[in-house]
Amino acid sequence: MTLLVVGSVAFDAVETPHGKVERMIGGAATYFAVAASYFVSVRLVGVVGEDFTHDDAAIFRGRRIDTAGLERVKGLTFFWAGRYSPDMNDRTTLRTDLNVFADFQPKLPEIYRKSPFVFLANIQPALQRSVLQQMGARPKVVALDTMNYWIEGSNAELRELLRDVDVLMINDAEARQLSGEYNLLRAGRAIRAMGPKMLVIKRGEHGALLVEGNSVFSVPAMPLDKVHDPTGAGDSFAGGFMGSLAAAGRVNSASLRKAMVYGSVMGSFAVEHFGLERLRHLKRPEINARARQFKKLTHFNL
Amino acid sequence: MTLLVVGSVAFDAVETPHGKVERMIGGAATYFAVAASYFVSVRLVGVVGEDFTHDDAAIFRGRRIDTAGLERVKGLTFFWAGRYSPDMNDRTTLRTDLNVFADFQPKLPEIYRKSPFVFLANIQPALQRSVLQQMGARPKVVALDTMNYWIEGSNAELRELLRDVDVLMINDAEARQLSGEYNLLRAGRAIRAMGPKMLVIKRGEHGALLVEGNSVFSVPAMPLDKVHDPTGAGDSFAGGFMGSLAAAGRVNSASLRKAMVYGSVMGSFAVEHFGLERLRHLKRPEINARARQFKKLTHFNL
Repeated sequence: MTLLVVGSVAFDAVETPHGKVERMIGGAATYFAVAASYFVSVRLVGVVGEDFTHDDAAIFRGRRIDTAGLERVKGLTFFWAGRYSPDMNDRTTLRTDLNVFADFQPKLPEIYRKSPFVFLANIQPALQRSVLQQMGARPKVVALDTMNYWIEGSNAELRELLRDVDVLMINDAEARQLSGEYNLLRAGRAIRAMGPKMLVIKRGEHGALLVEGNSVFSVPAMPLDKVHDPTGAGDSFAGGFMGSLAAAGRVNSASLRKAMVYGSVMGSFAVEHFGLERLRHLKRPEINARARQFKKLTHFNL
Repeated sequence: MTLLVVGSVAFDAVETPHGKVERMIGGAATYFAVAASYFVSVRLVGVVGEDFTHDDAAIFRGRRIDTAGLERVKGLTFFWAGRYSPDMNDRTTLRTDLNVFADFQPKLPEIYRKSPFVFLANIQPALQRSVLQQMGARPKVVALDTMNYWIEGSNAELRELLRDVDVLMINDAEARQLSGEYNLLRAGRAIRAMGPKMLVIKRGEHGALLVEGNSVFSVPAMPLDKVHDPTGAGDSFAGGFMGSLAAAGRVNSASLRKAMVYGSVMGSFAVEHFGLERLRHLKRPEINARARQFKKLTHFNL
């Protein structure tokens, strides 16, 4: 089943202990779309500027990614620059130039409006809302990412929007901030009372948690020899998660758990190289092999 | 198979966001012995002072814990006071009175010297070494805990000792410090090159990792509604781990993974109440039920 994603397409400059890249393609929707396209057909809604060339757009070609919804407008593409700490657990934003993203108004091509699976990447809640309003039918699954900035500054709009969301995908600090509960089980209950039936808590190198009903599922992060660049790991996780779920076509405990594993698989590939370098060159057998590694990593008999 | 533990028996004063206890029984060997005694017979080596009463010793009675090796000498018992941060991830030591522990010289009763499973809790490496020297035969499994203080201050003795250790059980910060590697896979390889065939990395609320050969096993911490007091969680984990392993009687990938789960089970009980209050009143069916919860928490099909 097709999967719609709305979010940023950007240029990033990134510095980690393993190197420095002056300009590479990034953005939440880019990582998400590339990761998800290994599982299902993806429809992309976003905006780029005149500096986004035919060569840059190659990241989307030869994949199941429909870019009819990717607007190209006058001006420069969203640019972000950041530097990671030596342990890569913290990052400092050095520069954020919203550029054409400042006036982004998502416009869904007609054919996109019946997408059964929808991912609203981390953008202003009002824009996320406008995407839902353009949908011709209530999607089967709406998933949403957000951040501290919106939890603080657009709380009312976000809370209103959460009533129409099935899956909220945020990190542990955001779950704590949104719920006012430090304990993640209590945070999960409080957030589910706001609307989302399912909560996915991304914990970086500590893996991810799924809270649905009274059930909790935990998946670790794959221990890796080399972590070159954490940029986009969370969005790649989201892409693997939603891609796997949309490919399954139904939402139940089994498909959700499997989606958590494929989310972790895609997140683990994302960090192995700068930007999308590892993610863009994957083969499906590599993805399956790593999913089996997650099985080995977590399997036990009592 | 019987299990020998050498380490501290203490009185603790603890303050957490959930309350304050002025004086309760604690110490690494106490938590370890109580947790392990649900699985196997435990032999305890430690020292207490005159203030350690018959009532205090009740913690060991009615269990499979042999206290022939628990010396009682003139003076006061080791006393530790600490306060946890609001999120309980950090703690401040308010007071450490070594008292009789300052002159502790472990003396193994004759019958203890053939224990097949040995746990050297976190004490001075020279004392851990003296325990191994008193063993009549090379134990089947020697496990060791240590801390930043010894890694820094007694590095040569510790490194010498590690050559004779099978399982090193430390936390992630200690693994990084000991190996000089931030990446935990690399840290694991470096540490195994020092002697221990197996490395257990305790990560608190993020679970634990087992590194053995080329295999890594990850077990999450049980998400809990209430975490009242993290004191002793790591030692309870060690007790469940070694207890389960000694009960299995053999060391292989299956018994090690199972031991990791029972370690996590005992650690999860330990934090649910102050000190040993939850751990001391457990029934074996509760332990088994929580182990099955770990299965539910981590199980998936691809």
